[in-house]
Amino acid sequence: MRLLDHINSPKDLRALNPRQLPLLAKELRDFIIDIVAVKEGHLGASLGVVELTIALHYIFDTPKDKLIWDVGHQAYGHKILTGRKEIFDTNRQLGGISGFPKRTESAYDDFGTGHSSTSISAILGMALAAKLRGQANRNHIAVIGDASIASGMAFEGLNHAGVTDANVLIILNDNAIGIDPSVGALKKYLTNVKLGTAKDGNLFECLNFKYNGPVDGHDLTALLHELELLKDVAGPKLLHVITTKGKGLTKAEENQVAYHAPGKFDRITGNLISKPDVKLPPKYQDVFGHTLVELAISNEKIVGITPAMPTGSSLKYLMESVPDRAFDVGIAEQHAVTMAAGMAAEGLVPFCAIYSTFLQRAYDQVIHDVALQNLPVIFCLDRAGLVGQDGPSHHGVFDITYLRCIPNLIIFAPMNEMELRNIMHTAQLGLPHPIVIRYPRGRGTTVAWKAPFEKISIGIGQELKIGTKVAVLSIGHIGNMVVQLIEELDRPDAIGHYNMRFIKPLDTQLLRTIFQTYEYIITLEDGCKAGGFGSAILEYANQVQAKCKIEIFGIEDQFIPHGTIEELQVLANIDLKTLKKHLNNLFP
Amino acid sequence: MRLLDHINSPKDLRALNPRQLPLLAKELRDFIIDIVAVKEGHLGASLGVVELTIALHYIFDTPKDKLIWDVGHQAYGHKILTGRKEIFDTNRQLGGISGFPKRTESAYDDFGTGHSSTSISAILGMALAAKLRGQANRNHIAVIGDASIASGMAFEGLNHAGVTDANVLIILNDNAIGIDPSVGALKKYLTNVKLGTAKDGNLFECLNFKYNGPVDGHDLTALLHELELLKDVAGPKLLHVITTKGKGLTKAEENQVAYHAPGKFDRITGNLISKPDVKLPPKYQDVFGHTLVELAISNEKIVGITPAMPTGSSLKYLMESVPDRAFDVGIAEQHAVTMAAGMAAEGLVPFCAIYSTFLQRAYDQVIHDVALQNLPVIFCLDRAGLVGQDGPSHHGVFDITYLRCIPNLIIFAPMNEMELRNIMHTAQLGLPHPIVIRYPRGRGTTVAWKAPFEKISIGIGQELKIGTKVAVLSIGHIGNMVVQLIEELDRPDAIGHYNMRFIKPLDTQLLRTIFQTYEYIITLEDGCKAGGFGSAILEYANQVQAKCKIEIFGIEDQFIPHGTIEELQVLANIDLKTLKKHLNNLFP
Repeated sequence: MRLLDHINSPKDLRALNPRQLPLLAKELRDFIIDIVAVKEGHLGASLGVVELTIALHYIFDTPKDKLIWDVGHQAYGHKILTGRKEIFDTNRQLGGISGFPKRTESAYDDFGTGHSSTSISAILGMALAAKLRGQANRNHIAVIGDASIASGMAFEGLNHAGVTDANVLIILNDNAIGIDPSVGALKKYLTNVKLGTAKDGNLFECLNFKYNGPVDGHDLTALLHELELLKDVAGPKLLHVITTKGKGLTKAEENQVAYHAPGKFDRITGNLISKPDVKLPPKYQDVFGHTLVELAISNEKIVGITPAMPTGSSLKYLMESVPDRAFDVGIAEQHAVTMAAGMAAEGLVPFCAIYSTFLQRAYDQVIHDVALQNLPVIFCLDRAGLVGQDGPSHHGVFDITYLRCIPNLIIFAPMNEMELRNIMHTAQLGLPHPIVIRYPRGRGTTVAWKAPFEKISIGIGQELKIGTKVAVLSIGHIGNMVVQLIEELDRPDAIGHYNMRFIKPLDTQLLRTIFQTYEYIITLEDGCKAGGFGSAILEYANQVQAKCKIEIFGIEDQFIPHGTIEELQVLANIDLKTLKKHLNNLFP
Repeated sequence: MRLLDHINSPKDLRALNPRQLPLLAKELRDFIIDIVAVKEGHLGASLGVVELTIALHYIFDTPKDKLIWDVGHQAYGHKILTGRKEIFDTNRQLGGISGFPKRTESAYDDFGTGHSSTSISAILGMALAAKLRGQANRNHIAVIGDASIASGMAFEGLNHAGVTDANVLIILNDNAIGIDPSVGALKKYLTNVKLGTAKDGNLFECLNFKYNGPVDGHDLTALLHELELLKDVAGPKLLHVITTKGKGLTKAEENQVAYHAPGKFDRITGNLISKPDVKLPPKYQDVFGHTLVELAISNEKIVGITPAMPTGSSLKYLMESVPDRAFDVGIAEQHAVTMAAGMAAEGLVPFCAIYSTFLQRAYDQVIHDVALQNLPVIFCLDRAGLVGQDGPSHHGVFDITYLRCIPNLIIFAPMNEMELRNIMHTAQLGLPHPIVIRYPRGRGTTVAWKAPFEKISIGIGQELKIGTKVAVLSIGHIGNMVVQLIEELDRPDAIGHYNMRFIKPLDTQLLRTIFQTYEYIITLEDGCKAGGFGSAILEYANQVQAKCKIEIFGIEDQFIPHGTIEELQVLANIDLKTLKKHLNNLFP
């Protein structure tokens, strides 16, 4: 029987002899590999902190002591050791446990994460709360990676913590990689520290932290020793721990980017299990990535910017083909957007690729630096709409609303690969305004998508099908669901379908025609209803006093959990079946 | 005749002998003081950089070399030396020059500012553009204060710049104060550098910058020398300049907070010109500040947080009365919000005071750390709506839209002081959700505002006046305009007036009654129409298929310039006269 079989909480862990912990580490690593190999998930980060996870729960009195995992990709071991071993195979599935720490899931998950670099602020808030309550002996630990700590928000937390006497221990989990390899001056500095070539006067000591390390994060004895020492040291302190992402699975150590979230793999060899060789339509991200290379070759003013997502956004293709015009700025959305504005001010054509959910991190910069100055930055918002298993922290469902109110912006959602290509082509020819192009996670519709470029007229929607009674106005990829369902309807002749393309500016001419032609209007979007695309249609219909009945299909005022995109569409009532039933009921 | 009289551009400046520059500095300082004493504006910051401004334009080849002033409070001297001397007395007035750098105003304003900490990212974008164009000899300078450089976004810019070979010179204008005194570990470190007590291994050198300084920013000879040296040094470099905010006006040096933007003052003595002793209603910010002290005295779980606005938000009263529960975290909105979330998770009752326009900087944190976890943080959003002379970078006109789409949030706008007090009281009693309370810049309506606390029912609006034909639904302070105009109408009996109070949750019961009672609905808000309060009413009216005609009064899809709030309301068609005319025309 394994040691792990007896561990149902950190209390059980603390009953072990320190000499047993390396064995437990091996078992925990195997457990993670076994399940993620089959069930998928984030692998590399959690493998890298197996020893650290054990050491933290062994030395500290969790959950009395507070422990926050920044981002949370690395918290699988933590989940398994804190009572979720038996349900770990439900990870990231609808109704199962979350892939990230989640307060409502466990008393050991002190703060929900998902987006990076929040842990220092949150743990400081908790430490200050303890201080106010006179709880002097409680410990507060945040584990944060070297990619995350380079984000501005983490610096803000350090800068404040350094002038408090709050009991915070920041564990810098330095593996030199986020999802892609870390970048930036701080990363370079940390490398120098590890090599022993950094000058005296540690950067963290400049910020008034007690600095300890670097320590080998796979050496349990060393970790236990350091943590035991730090446990009773008051005030802000930082422990620099060196780990290897993917530790313990050779393939994952060798190819850390691919094994961040590798999908299914062979648990022994580590080989990825390749999908059947069916010719599928491309991912939208790859249409973006490859098209950008095509455009950049002919337009030398084009530059590409990503905040730490070269692989996820497919900007990597530009980085490979035209490296001097591709910029990975690290987890720094704010900087990415304003730097793009500076470039646009100088006549470059910046494509700024950011996930919808992460553009929330640079909202002010979009307003203040780009739109207010009307600088023609081209935003490519990947992962717009429901994203699936990453869940509520990652769904890109607010962007239509939070962008629609910004003057000067053009907002476009392609229905397919060709529209994405063509709007990118159109944008780089030169627009009088900044533009946001939003597209979803996953694949498009067309295997043969590399058609010659065509210019798209700004603010012009598209009539896909004329009907007699009901006009369905869709925006973006979800319009393909309408195409499909119309074929399955009882009365397809009654239904018109309009791919509106632009959320802003609206095609008001087309809309007036629609209002005059149809009795019913149905709007469909994969974002929130409040203030969204349907709301924009409603505002215009109200303005011109349209008489038709309007119904808005979108996401209600609630956070949508994790699950497959299809499952979540059903939850959100924006799935094919719901829509089909609704349309059939209009003509009983 | 003054030297300044001959300076119509930096070219004229460069024709002077270096020995003449101290005299020019004196004249420039006098010029600023003379005009700001009468016309008002931001005084202290510009006085502090008079020598630096002269030195920069003297040494560098502006506008070929690029120069960005972070925030821009300090750019008055820059404006005066770059061709705007004759119109400087129109500063901050409607139709006059902007109080901040503005691209459309001058070829010397390379990047518009207003919000802090954007300059490093923008100048890096420009420097990288120059590099791509092969313009190796162009210089790129950002002047940034010690308060602004401590914001996360600035760190992101430094972290990226440090690994480029871009030609950027960051001038750290270290006067140990933003609007209020600087805080944080970086400030402490910079103090140690100035005192010579910092250890070796400069923090900026850790980030791969060439560090020079500290140099006395009022010593023109020293400044010219340093800048001349740095002009031909390639790559990222930082010059640490020590200045005194308010330099040259004794009162402004002695009381730097009051003289940041002192209003009118005597240009010789520096004495503030006190307003006539009329008993006025209080500023909303003071109602917030004093009420928070009242509440905090009886509820020891209350804490107050401000990102660098103790004076502007009036959190200073809590800082004075209950210092251990009041936190000025510096220009760090992201950290402020997530730290508040951490505190709320631990059972504290955090009041997080942030201007509406600056909450844009922490949008993701509101969604991801507060709302998603449903932590009952109490946001107090000052400067919501049009803010007047600070102009488009500072108007708080997007908040209703960008917040309304976030699940779990309550959004309230008080119509007067008592409603602000009472909702603060209600919130600290414990709500099941986070709440945003938005209120405007300026004064309320009631001199005797300190009434006993009353609990406000969440989601309940208020019928102020019954009418027969038209219901005006107002949100927040602008409702007082409706009260006034109804008295002046031809047919006051026809008009009902509803103070809706809650943007979310909407008072749907009251709304249904209104929809049944009135033919016309007019909604009024001091925010953008797209997705705003009126849009929320429209969405609900559509949902319940209300038949009344609805008209939305709010700000159209454009950036509103600077001017007095009254002037801007006229521009935006949300002024009393426009509304009155419209209502009278409904019953011709």
